[in-house]
Amino acid sequence: MRNASVIGLGMTKFGKNEASLKSLAISACKEALIDAGNPKVDAIYVGNFLGGQLAGQEIIGSILAKELGLGPIPATKTEGACASGGIAFRQAYHMVAAGIYDTVLVAGVEKMTHASTNLVTQAINSAMDNDSNEGISGLTFPGFFGVVANRYMYEYGAKEEHLAMVAVKNREYAMHNPKAQFQKETSIDEIMHARPITSPLGLFHCSPITDGAAAVVITAGNTGVKVLASGQASGPPLMQDIPDLLSIEAIQESARQAYEEAGLGPDDIDVVELHDCFAMTEILAIEDLGLFEKGTGWKAVEQGLTKHGGKVPVNTSGGLLSRGHPIGATGISQIVQIVSQLRRTAVNQVEGVRIGLAQNLGGTGAFSTVHIFEGSGV
Amino acid sequence: MRNASVIGLGMTKFGKNEASLKSLAISACKEALIDAGNPKVDAIYVGNFLGGQLAGQEIIGSILAKELGLGPIPATKTEGACASGGIAFRQAYHMVAAGIYDTVLVAGVEKMTHASTNLVTQAINSAMDNDSNEGISGLTFPGFFGVVANRYMYEYGAKEEHLAMVAVKNREYAMHNPKAQFQKETSIDEIMHARPITSPLGLFHCSPITDGAAAVVITAGNTGVKVLASGQASGPPLMQDIPDLLSIEAIQESARQAYEEAGLGPDDIDVVELHDCFAMTEILAIEDLGLFEKGTGWKAVEQGLTKHGGKVPVNTSGGLLSRGHPIGATGISQIVQIVSQLRRTAVNQVEGVRIGLAQNLGGTGAFSTVHIFEGSGV
Repeated sequence: MRNASVIGLGMTKFGKNEASLKSLAISACKEALIDAGNPKVDAIYVGNFLGGQLAGQEIIGSILAKELGLGPIPATKTEGACASGGIAFRQAYHMVAAGIYDTVLVAGVEKMTHASTNLVTQAINSAMDNDSNEGISGLTFPGFFGVVANRYMYEYGAKEEHLAMVAVKNREYAMHNPKAQFQKETSIDEIMHARPITSPLGLFHCSPITDGAAAVVITAGNTGVKVLASGQASGPPLMQDIPDLLSIEAIQESARQAYEEAGLGPDDIDVVELHDCFAMTEILAIEDLGLFEKGTGWKAVEQGLTKHGGKVPVNTSGGLLSRGHPIGATGISQIVQIVSQLRRTAVNQVEGVRIGLAQNLGGTGAFSTVHIFEGSGV
Repeated sequence: MRNASVIGLGMTKFGKNEASLKSLAISACKEALIDAGNPKVDAIYVGNFLGGQLAGQEIIGSILAKELGLGPIPATKTEGACASGGIAFRQAYHMVAAGIYDTVLVAGVEKMTHASTNLVTQAINSAMDNDSNEGISGLTFPGFFGVVANRYMYEYGAKEEHLAMVAVKNREYAMHNPKAQFQKETSIDEIMHARPITSPLGLFHCSPITDGAAAVVITAGNTGVKVLASGQASGPPLMQDIPDLLSIEAIQESARQAYEEAGLGPDDIDVVELHDCFAMTEILAIEDLGLFEKGTGWKAVEQGLTKHGGKVPVNTSGGLLSRGHPIGATGISQIVQIVSQLRRTAVNQVEGVRIGLAQNLGGTGAFSTVHIFEGSGV
């Protein structure tokens, strides 16, 4: 396996966007290709989850190859619910590292805001095992993570304020990110009195419905931000099969793989983007990534250890909660932010960062990917 | 890159099946794992196209990992319309050849017959570029290949009888395949007087709506039927962008790659499964694969060169036309048949075969994969 690095970044503004699925993806891809110096591209991978259900559009890989003028190159869409983008990146990275392709374009895209909330909720539930009883019983994702949050507070002594602290932190980061969906200032008080979604989760604790696309270019060698490791794991797709509701096995296992491959541990990570689909999920993820002990994540949040000046700034882009969550694009947009941090050109730049980590979750723990990157350390 | 070979095969009966998407996939996977001797599996890839739209079910990769008891292994769905299966196989093969995984399970699955024909037709049209004018103008896949057939007959002198000869051949093969959707005998006369779909294509010239799943196990080394080469290409997803309606660029390019990688040419191929989504497509494909000169495929069919005793038997499983076309499963079921041929255990076994080829198409030429396999030559 040879080295591979990220040499191009592109991303649309996230939020409500009148552009089509295809147009969003083209915008992000063009920006990434220009940023990479318009290299010859050998293949394209696209992370997308709901193109068929919400936009009546599949074959997005082939469409992009044609529209971008890349010739008859192989094009592949990958799906793993909300981890579709991270999985696309992993495939592309391995194909470059293995020498099958020299340079690959990886895009993530989703178009959601044109559909009704009911339709979106129904489509997102295709990320549960609907042949068993979850979909039939009416469980939704906010429902699942609401249960988890209640149990977490009961077990470990966290309070609703700690969920709000995650949401405030990510909003404060998003306020400085012109590509984030939400830039309006908020407060603990506003968050705690916002419209309830599933107790204890309110409106600000849940990632929004978003349109958007992100893209990166990976190439062989060390000319960009180096990919140190790629981890991917699966976990139980059914709530009743999860042995411990307060740990996400797929995050732990994908992180274990990535740390091992990189020869690094959690203490070596300088900056993180992780999958805060709900405020609760961020607290679980900082624990499952090994950044903080199980059951202490809420204390780390309280002490400011997950922001600038703390142990490891988390979701400096604003995270899914405030940057937005165009599902297929999310995993790629996380990598855009981490690579920007390691290039020292990010919004909410963290000083002196050299090693960054991006973690992307799918379903209620059905998939997780972890990628670790190394900047030049300039 | 190290050698990799196919050591396990599984397939449900194709046709109308009351089982769910998940159950179909599990059946095929279990059969393939048993056939492979229940090896430790490092990852799973699944080709699926319409799970979200027709069954409200995505995350099928993770569901299979859980249901099959494979542990927290990486699981990935790939999509490239009707080439979703071929693309899944290609990813899996390269990950084994590159040494990322030692043994990978590859499944393809689709559940279609429970939905109305209108809904299925609409869902299949997500394999066109609907942001441009094709979907909007109401073009369907039978419409496209009907236009192609008319033009082919005009240019090269083929007659409707030649389309019927393809359909009869594939039905005759399917009559001996207990897993095929259609086993009832037919005749040129019945085919030519069947219900018209899009002139000149009638009912027997169009692949059916089908439920089914297929699976294979790939492992490092030479213990099974060896994978010699993998080609994948894209082509214009819009009819008006296709320079020559009578050639499918993605088939030509994917074949070119595969022949080059294998160090073989079309004359070295002993048996072929190809993507006869319509009778016309089989004639184009035998030409675009280089098995016969452009414009002469219909003569080859007339002379019996694509069946037992001819130059190269094509679609000995019955093909999409009569084996059936559960979209995501098709590419894998083609490989099941080719590997069976090279194991000398196939339905409609061809004598003395050593090299086989499987070609899987997506859209109106948006994707094609070509895989070449080598048996032990016993």
